[in-house]
Amino acid sequence: MIVELISVGTELLLGNIVNTNAAYLSEKCAALGLSCYYQSVVGDNELRLSLVIEQALKRSDILILSGGLGPTQDDLTKEVVAKVLGLECELHQPSKERILSFFQKRNMAITENNWKQAMLPKGCKVVTNYNGTAPGIIIESNLKEIVMDTDKVTILLPGPPNELIPMFETSIVPYLRKLNPSILFSETVKICGIGESKAETMILDLIEGQTNPTIATYAKTGEVHIRVTAQAINTEEARKLIAPMVSKLKQRFGEHIFTLDDNVTLEEAIIDILKVNHLTLATVESCTGGLLAARFINVSGVSDVFQTGHITYSNEAKSKVLGIDEAMIEEHGAVSSTVAGEMAERLALLEGSEVTVGITGIAGPTGGSEEKPVGLVYIACSVFGKTQIVKYQFIGNRSRVRESAVSAALVLIRQCILDYFE
Amino acid sequence: MIVELISVGTELLLGNIVNTNAAYLSEKCAALGLSCYYQSVVGDNELRLSLVIEQALKRSDILILSGGLGPTQDDLTKEVVAKVLGLECELHQPSKERILSFFQKRNMAITENNWKQAMLPKGCKVVTNYNGTAPGIIIESNLKEIVMDTDKVTILLPGPPNELIPMFETSIVPYLRKLNPSILFSETVKICGIGESKAETMILDLIEGQTNPTIATYAKTGEVHIRVTAQAINTEEARKLIAPMVSKLKQRFGEHIFTLDDNVTLEEAIIDILKVNHLTLATVESCTGGLLAARFINVSGVSDVFQTGHITYSNEAKSKVLGIDEAMIEEHGAVSSTVAGEMAERLALLEGSEVTVGITGIAGPTGGSEEKPVGLVYIACSVFGKTQIVKYQFIGNRSRVRESAVSAALVLIRQCILDYFE
Repeated sequence: MIVELISVGTELLLGNIVNTNAAYLSEKCAALGLSCYYQSVVGDNELRLSLVIEQALKRSDILILSGGLGPTQDDLTKEVVAKVLGLECELHQPSKERILSFFQKRNMAITENNWKQAMLPKGCKVVTNYNGTAPGIIIESNLKEIVMDTDKVTILLPGPPNELIPMFETSIVPYLRKLNPSILFSETVKICGIGESKAETMILDLIEGQTNPTIATYAKTGEVHIRVTAQAINTEEARKLIAPMVSKLKQRFGEHIFTLDDNVTLEEAIIDILKVNHLTLATVESCTGGLLAARFINVSGVSDVFQTGHITYSNEAKSKVLGIDEAMIEEHGAVSSTVAGEMAERLALLEGSEVTVGITGIAGPTGGSEEKPVGLVYIACSVFGKTQIVKYQFIGNRSRVRESAVSAALVLIRQCILDYFE
Repeated sequence: MIVELISVGTELLLGNIVNTNAAYLSEKCAALGLSCYYQSVVGDNELRLSLVIEQALKRSDILILSGGLGPTQDDLTKEVVAKVLGLECELHQPSKERILSFFQKRNMAITENNWKQAMLPKGCKVVTNYNGTAPGIIIESNLKEIVMDTDKVTILLPGPPNELIPMFETSIVPYLRKLNPSILFSETVKICGIGESKAETMILDLIEGQTNPTIATYAKTGEVHIRVTAQAINTEEARKLIAPMVSKLKQRFGEHIFTLDDNVTLEEAIIDILKVNHLTLATVESCTGGLLAARFINVSGVSDVFQTGHITYSNEAKSKVLGIDEAMIEEHGAVSSTVAGEMAERLALLEGSEVTVGITGIAGPTGGSEEKPVGLVYIACSVFGKTQIVKYQFIGNRSRVRESAVSAALVLIRQCILDYFE
């Protein structure tokens, strides 16, 4: 079945708020096995909203509208939906009583416009809102006169996420599950150290031959995520469909795969390897200025493997903190293979950590030269004294160069540890 | 002029990512005086994408499409737009060279599908992408045969926000400004150290009396931005309308205002104060693990004032790097006012910096106790040996606690420096 999302609200069209409802509803609908082909955002305008609803009724089976159920004049989603579907609105007594009680509990005065929220399309299913005054609405219609396909479902939800989400979880999910008993289930294979286009080339035959499960690649800085999705009657059946595809991906990408768990980040995967091998990690950063350490420290329980990091932004700091010879920095330049290597190796001596990383580079926009342009970064990783130093040339603004350097460092750290234990 | 946003990507329809691009573009278009009546999201599907584009051409003057410009088979925005507009694609040599150089610099192999990104619709304006390989595209068309209105502009942007945003700022804003000369012009008064609801209360009379300019408050972690917006025929006229309102805001918020420049961040404002007073800053972080240093180091030219930072995540690191007595840590706990103060003060001795900051806290989700719950953070800031230590209790997950701590540290640093020079 095809679902279409319509978000109603001028504040979305003005960019005052981000449409997190659409992301939430899409994800939930996908998990319920519903296909979403279109999402629309439209303002609180009768004509334009009518047009969007009419179009959606023609091309989708289930419409989910969010927003525009409030008590004020410019909230008109319910009224427009009723008009398009040819339904009258009538007073819904239980909703009126809920609104009354809502205001009484808060010692707030009820204004006349509040009763608008108890006027509901004739024959609809009313969905109780436990977190606000606007009830949700489900309208099942047989629309032979408007569209060829006959059975359509229109669902109206309040806009505030703290009302929409609990209502959807509690009442709409069970309703949709009855409508559409099959589900979509995904597993994600996350790889690093291979670019998106190369990764795709390596699995082109799988992509071209895909039916159920389907596979799709998503690029993230330094990583590629391959999502394998199966449609089935339950999770167990979906897993059976997915398993052979995941095996093939494992064969092709081997140790470039750092996790099969959608919730695990690259830094968490590295922390796991460090923990398993009873290793500790220390960092010294120049251009990335603490971003790499911050990625590790965002993982709860990192203290077993990460204790100390340094930020040595100036040459003096590199000498003072790590004891790197100033003449050496002078000779090779702070951004050099030699200095990166010294940073990682001297850090190992200073902290006694088995794995150490040094990053030095030119994040820009100033400080570049013809010989050493903006975006040049050296990263050194030392594992038990065995050091790999890699030169990178990143592009983009200062923030982008720094993010790229952090991602590259994560990939390099993982690779160096794996190499060591090979 | 009416602008319509079309976001292309199956990952949006699956709810894997939130459509922040649409919010960003809507906000920018509104500021440019363009009306946005519709936003759509559609997947990487030729038929459905064609239908959405054809409809948008009928009802809007400017189409902005984002996403689907990548090198892989399922990226087909450009191809579909060209087909709908009746244009052939041809090789754009400069783009080909940019792609070649992009890969060469990274020592990465180019696969055949990469050249797809250099095939551009005949006669289009090519917009250089300084942060990736997909160029932006502007197509001006006279579409008498398809629609009644004749002049339509179709703009294609890459999907990743770190490519889309800089491209929009640099190249698309000036282009759109030429198309639509009546403007909305904004100035932003940024304040820190006052919460949003209190800030709003302080200017309630101004908010209620607003006409042209309008004022609106936006809360950011630790900051409130008050945007004053005027509609006028040019920037000069708009500035004249805005000036009296900004004066009133200055009177009300005084030194809580850290900048009147929308592009200046709180960390930049602090760096400016440090530079003017010839001061240097050093940081030592526990729970924030480098995030505070990273904020400063994202500012170009920071090396005059920031040279060294440390991350002392474990108790041992606090003793070893800073020389804090282990018995003292044992007695008061690592997360304590005493240890925070020691961190800032010993850092000043170690680095000789005039301004030093120490942060220690419990970011969670584990490690909290009844006495010291998750979210408890102590921040100490020392200016020429005069130390202020503040206790905070933040809420939210690990990442949120850490971000809140960094924002609070920035506010505290600024306040301590201002206090010192008062």
